[in-house]
Amino acid sequence: MMTKIKEGERLDDLGRKGYQIIQDPKRFCFGIDAVLLTGFARVKDGDTVLDLGTGTGIIPILLEAKTGASHLTGLEIQPESADMAKRSVCYNELEKKIDIVEGDLKNASEIFGRGSFDVVTCNPPYMIGAHGLTGGNESKTIARHEVLCTFEDVAREAAAVLKPGGMFYLVHRPFRLVELLGTMTKYRLEPKRMKFVHPFVDKEPNMVLIEAKKGARSRVEIEPPLIVYKSPGVYTDEIYDIYKPPEYDDRKK
Amino acid sequence: MMTKIKEGERLDDLGRKGYQIIQDPKRFCFGIDAVLLTGFARVKDGDTVLDLGTGTGIIPILLEAKTGASHLTGLEIQPESADMAKRSVCYNELEKKIDIVEGDLKNASEIFGRGSFDVVTCNPPYMIGAHGLTGGNESKTIARHEVLCTFEDVAREAAAVLKPGGMFYLVHRPFRLVELLGTMTKYRLEPKRMKFVHPFVDKEPNMVLIEAKKGARSRVEIEPPLIVYKSPGVYTDEIYDIYKPPEYDDRKK
Repeated sequence: MMTKIKEGERLDDLGRKGYQIIQDPKRFCFGIDAVLLTGFARVKDGDTVLDLGTGTGIIPILLEAKTGASHLTGLEIQPESADMAKRSVCYNELEKKIDIVEGDLKNASEIFGRGSFDVVTCNPPYMIGAHGLTGGNESKTIARHEVLCTFEDVAREAAAVLKPGGMFYLVHRPFRLVELLGTMTKYRLEPKRMKFVHPFVDKEPNMVLIEAKKGARSRVEIEPPLIVYKSPGVYTDEIYDIYKPPEYDDRKK
Repeated sequence: MMTKIKEGERLDDLGRKGYQIIQDPKRFCFGIDAVLLTGFARVKDGDTVLDLGTGTGIIPILLEAKTGASHLTGLEIQPESADMAKRSVCYNELEKKIDIVEGDLKNASEIFGRGSFDVVTCNPPYMIGAHGLTGGNESKTIARHEVLCTFEDVAREAAAVLKPGGMFYLVHRPFRLVELLGTMTKYRLEPKRMKFVHPFVDKEPNMVLIEAKKGARSRVEIEPPLIVYKSPGVYTDEIYDIYKPPEYDDRKK
């Protein structure tokens, strides 16, 4: 079956199992954040996974390639993004493994039922309300700003749809760390593992990856920092291993 | 005036202003933790400083050397440690700048009054209750384990003795980070700046330095990691600058 690529869209190679993803450069395209989250998440063989606010479906598609998950679901509120995600699933012939559901993550536990997933992932909007808004198109705004949902919505619904002992994986901005940890513990998502992502070893981190376990006791492991560049424009080996951007495939051969 | 050094005690050079400190190797001696905290803390000219659980007085003595604090106080519950700290203050002729008070940090706000300091520092016991206790002498146990106070006591009293907008500086173990941040925010000590200390760049951090501001809004800056060793036994330049251990003085000349 031929999957339709609409005008203005492009097909990008994910560098994993030959998978491609449909994106529209005018809309929000996935970033390194989502890719790093799929490298950080520990999905066990047979796990069921829900990605909240899946956008173009990058996280479930990459996790299908990288893990032994039995089934993955992506929930996305924007119809155009959900449609692109569905067509990417078709293009990669993953219809039996991945469901893309159009819906509001604020209602995730109503849509899927409580205690129904082993793993929940989320690469949510980072910015609070309209902070830092500079106009631009609505699709990007929704992906970047807490216009349609807050982090409290994410944590509450993640906790609700997870089985007891289930795992939550989040990528977010470090400046919100204190609030994020406080909100997670409020919903008994206990942070167990964290990793800061620094562009260079001597720079502040611009991302934080967090693993939380539903109902666990308080004790967290901070991992060695993840450094993105060893020199300007040159990725570290660790990033190559996680990211494998197609344009760098030659280096690996 | 000749300060008495008791039998079994030794005098260690702090590598700052010629200051020396009296320590007893059989008791708890200061570690790199306390020194790094004095490098992380931002004490403004004229600030008044309280160090909770000051031990041998290492933190007020180093902060006197490094900052323009107008007055520093060290509170210590163990009589022998408080006595050593007082004699170190005398030895360095700092009696007008530093007070060592023997007392329980759980009563700090009763002893000193509420809202009475610009800055509070603390290098508290890291271990919860009797966890990891292997016997040994009581002095070291009290310094390392939460036998006589909990972190909740530290946060509550720090918040109480600080002026509005006052700053709290803490060094602790990363595995307790989530609990530490939660307890601080409970007492309106809002974490504003954090730095993880890693023995090597590719290892987990074994310390975390935290700055909190009383009554501030939630937004935290994570600093670049502080790496202790560039190769086994060889400090990084950043550590030399903060630590200046006397045996390495030659390197700086």
